[in-house]
Amino acid sequence: SQPRPLHLTTRHSIKRKRRSFDTHKGQAGRVGIWAGSEGMLGAASLCAEAAIRSGAGLVTLFTPPTLYAALASITPREIIITPSINPQDLLKSRFDALVIGPGLGSPVASLAEKLFAVIQETELPCVLDADMLNLIAREKRLDLFRKNTILTPHPGEMARIYPASEHFSRVPTADNFTSEYSSTLLYKGARTLVAWEASPIYHNSTGTPAMATAGQGDVLSGLIGGLCAQGYPNLEAARLAAWLCGEACQLALRESHITEETLTASDTIAHLAQAFDALT
Amino acid sequence: SQPRPLHLTTRHSIKRKRRSFDTHKGQAGRVGIWAGSEGMLGAASLCAEAAIRSGAGLVTLFTPPTLYAALASITPREIIITPSINPQDLLKSRFDALVIGPGLGSPVASLAEKLFAVIQETELPCVLDADMLNLIAREKRLDLFRKNTILTPHPGEMARIYPASEHFSRVPTADNFTSEYSSTLLYKGARTLVAWEASPIYHNSTGTPAMATAGQGDVLSGLIGGLCAQGYPNLEAARLAAWLCGEACQLALRESHITEETLTASDTIAHLAQAFDALT
Amino acid sequence: SQPRPLHLTTRHSIKRKRRSFDTHKGQAGRVGIWAGSEGMLGAASLCAEAAIRSGAGLVTLFTPPTLYAALASITPREIIITPSINPQDLLKSRFDALVIGPGLGSPVASLAEKLFAVIQETELPCVLDADMLNLIAREKRLDLFRKNTILTPHPGEMARIYPASEHFSRVPTADNFTSEYSSTLLYKGARTLVAWEASPIYHNSTGTPAMATAGQGDVLSGLIGGLCAQGYPNLEAARLAAWLCGEACQLALRESHITEETLTASDTIAHLAQAFDALT
Amino acid sequence: SQPRPLHLTTRHSIKRKRRSFDTHKGQAGRVGIWAGSEGMLGAASLCAEAAIRSGAGLVTLFTPPTLYAALASITPREIIITPSINPQDLLKSRFDALVIGPGLGSPVASLAEKLFAVIQETELPCVLDADMLNLIAREKRLDLFRKNTILTPHPGEMARIYPASEHFSRVPTADNFTSEYSSTLLYKGARTLVAWEASPIYHNSTGTPAMATAGQGDVLSGLIGGLCAQGYPNLEAARLAAWLCGEACQLALRESHITEETLTASDTIAHLAQAFDALT
Repeated sequence: SQPRPLHLTTRHSIKRKRRSFDTHKGQAGRVGIWAGSEGMLGAASLCAEAAIRSGAGLVTLFTPPTLYAALASITPREIIITPSINPQDLLKSRFDALVIGPGLGSPVASLAEKLFAVIQETELPCVLDADMLNLIAREKRLDLFRKNTILTPHPGEMARIYPASEHFSRVPTADNFTSEYSSTLLYKGARTLVAWEASPIYHNSTGTPAMATAGQGDVLSGLIGGLCAQGYPNLEAARLAAWLCGEACQLALRESHITEETLTASDTIAHLAQAFDALT
Repeated sequence: SQPRPLHLTTRHSIKRKRRSFDTHKGQAGRVGIWAGSEGMLGAASLCAEAAIRSGAGLVTLFTPPTLYAALASITPREIIITPSINPQDLLKSRFDALVIGPGLGSPVASLAEKLFAVIQETELPCVLDADMLNLIAREKRLDLFRKNTILTPHPGEMARIYPASEHFSRVPTADNFTSEYSSTLLYKGARTLVAWEASPIYHNSTGTPAMATAGQGDVLSGLIGGLCAQGYPNLEAARLAAWLCGEACQLALRESHITEETLTASDTIAHLAQAFDALT
Repeated sequence: SQPRPLHLTTRHSIKRKRRSFDTHKGQAGRVGIWAGSEGMLGAASLCAEAAIRSGAGLVTLFTPPTLYAALASITPREIIITPSINPQDLLKSRFDALVIGPGLGSPVASLAEKLFAVIQETELPCVLDADMLNLIAREKRLDLFRKNTILTPHPGEMARIYPASEHFSRVPTADNFTSEYSSTLLYKGARTLVAWEASPIYHNSTGTPAMATAGQGDVLSGLIGGLCAQGYPNLEAARLAAWLCGEACQLALRESHITEETLTASDTIAHLAQAFDALT
Repeated sequence: SQPRPLHLTTRHSIKRKRRSFDTHKGQAGRVGIWAGSEGMLGAASLCAEAAIRSGAGLVTLFTPPTLYAALASITPREIIITPSINPQDLLKSRFDALVIGPGLGSPVASLAEKLFAVIQETELPCVLDADMLNLIAREKRLDLFRKNTILTPHPGEMARIYPASEHFSRVPTADNFTSEYSSTLLYKGARTLVAWEASPIYHNSTGTPAMATAGQGDVLSGLIGGLCAQGYPNLEAARLAAWLCGEACQLALRESHITEETLTASDTIAHLAQAFDALT
């Protein structure tokens, strides 16, 4: 078959949505997030903050009751934090998009089953990231890579969910994977690729090696979820989020108090506004 | 009857109070707040911070003892946080204004009864917001909408406390409601309305769709409470608070690190000072 | 007898200590603080932060073990927080100055006794503030107002420890009080007075009614303790601390993000550096 | 024998590593930290933040399970915090460098034994700081000063691990110590010395007496660990970290909101970026 076209995502390629004058917070999008575990609450908090800073109007973060106080202490006050032991609570509230995975760790089997059930049931845009991808790989539940899901593997995670990736370079991997699975794919790397089914394969044009630091992936997945909740189609949300994170970091490095060494994922969040404003 | 006049609240309409040289913190106003519940502590904290930043000298936030540590971890150190299971503690300290409701969730019946009793007893300016309005609607306790209360419903909450609102546009709704109830009404929307009994109906002139994000209502109710505690009459406090929040957000959007997407309720608080200074 | 002279504390009146090149943190001064109680941990944290920002090298804050986690969550990481139920631990470590009282609440009798014992035993400069003054008044332990203590009452607290103050204006009150007791007195007010035994009575020349807000007293007492620990004599430490707090607030008000209404005690701390630099 | 040469560490002496375009977070270096105890969690948090801001890609901080929530509340969200009672967990994950000691307090004997065992087993660059040095001195385990370790004593700690230091001035002490032990030595003081075996003895050229304040040592040890994890040789990591901390503080003092009195260890961290950028 003919190879798919390669496109570049630039500041000109995605139209920024603007709110109408009478938008209220419900209309601005509701995101539900299942993330975090003991030791990795920061990932959950970064993801939720990115979602609220993406423009979503309401973000709810679910957490085991025993971790509630610790998670609340590090999470922006605008986030609702719902203690829960059952991921199916994600299906009981009204959300416009879901994010599952950042800082999830290695859930016990019963929790894993419930997470699988949620992914299977939901028709919402649903970002699957990090440990959720590892869990799916381990339990061989690749049937969950449905059309409404958005997957954000880095190369290590890609090797687990799609071992064939080790035999191909990045573009054919993205091509083959999205031919085989109906998910939207955001394949992290020095030049992140985004693709979906028969879409072109999009290279991201932003980014810096300063992003090789903990938490950047958590910010990215929260941002995708937030953009989906606002009505960006999954493919555009993934492309835009990758572009925004890379642009935010490039802009951050222009500041005197940030260098390649010191940049953290929180700095990325702090520069999302400038990145949004750099969109034409 | 003749329709009530419509006025606009602008930077020229409300006189900013200035402190005399020898003001002490007790004279600057004392606010008591009952707010927050598991999962929604951020609402309580935002409300309390807005109250202290409104110029009130002392702000006390009441919280169930089990949530004390988590709430303390996210609340400015200048706020006193009193663990309590009984809202009637609001009546035992010396306050100049009360705020009840942000992040309250769905209180159990016994707590609801005590909250009703406090609202019934107090003669202080008393802001009723969010879940407190929902609770009053559910329990059909509209008798609590007394002269000293200030109600801050958004359209969804308005529909619950005043189902007739669904048949009218916003101005007649505000007109009818304040003819029927003696509360001061702040009716949220793209142009917030403020009215009281036979007063004109005031349109707010500030605001932006960037405010369609979680927590803005909590900031607003804390601000009203803080202004009442400083001696602004209820109607003026409500008008001024709505104006300040809208103006703060408009000013925030001029900064390079804030956009329509990224603006949060904490950003509103951070720009209250500039909004106060914009008053003539 | 002849009235004592009245002097003004200005930026020219107190010589700022500068560190020699090889100062180490032990030489920069060690402060021990007993402060805080459930509901008022913020006072303890503000006091400790002011002490470390005064230039003291090491600050240790003692807290009941049950409050440790909550206090740690709001206190700068440079502060050591020692869980303790016994104030006599203040005497077991090596400190150069003590501060007792901010946010203390109403200690039970056994704790009160131990606090009295510490004040009685220590020869260190010892700031007694807020609830510690109320406790001393209530238990009629004015014998504790020894030469090494520094008292920082506002008018309400003054009336409790020295009821005669209600019959005199501020200067004669300060005069009489320091004739009767050998403590250094910092008598808060729109123009704070500082005096000691036969010293002149010093009027502070800085300050603003924006300081009529919670927590300013906690900052002041921490600052006095920190300055004493660095070797400023008690009278000079009290004069300088009052001057610095007032100057810091005046400078803070020049910033666009701070007004009379929004200024908090944390803003005072954030402007101490500019106040130090304003000393000639 | 002939005395070792004395060199100066300046902005020209150490080549800053730059990342290649396709660096990922694993390649940027992984640091494992055992630090903190009740009352001294701030030290652990400062150390971990310095490590992540040094450019390390992943930083894991181990903490007793009972302190997890309090530590999480004060630590940047990008840090992984692993509850553990067994230091040997440091050997089970993949790290590129270890830091042991900041805020450790006085561990019980069983914990001390496990810490000794880790230091004995690891071949990774391993920074031993503060209370870990005191513990080694107390238990006479100087056999642990192996070639891969980096020791960061201040003069008081030096006197404990090497009593002979009290009879010599600083340079001969560094000379003798590193002739006797194969560790890299960073000997703190107004001019910090760094040496290793037969290397020259390096004087640091940066620093200010404003650094005589709590927590600076914790920042330094985290920074060394982070630099080692990125592939800087131990001697260079120690020299560079000392230079960066001193430079950061000098730069911080140029800001209007920081003076000799108010500078804290967090201010040092906040100025590391400017210090990195000052390297030629």
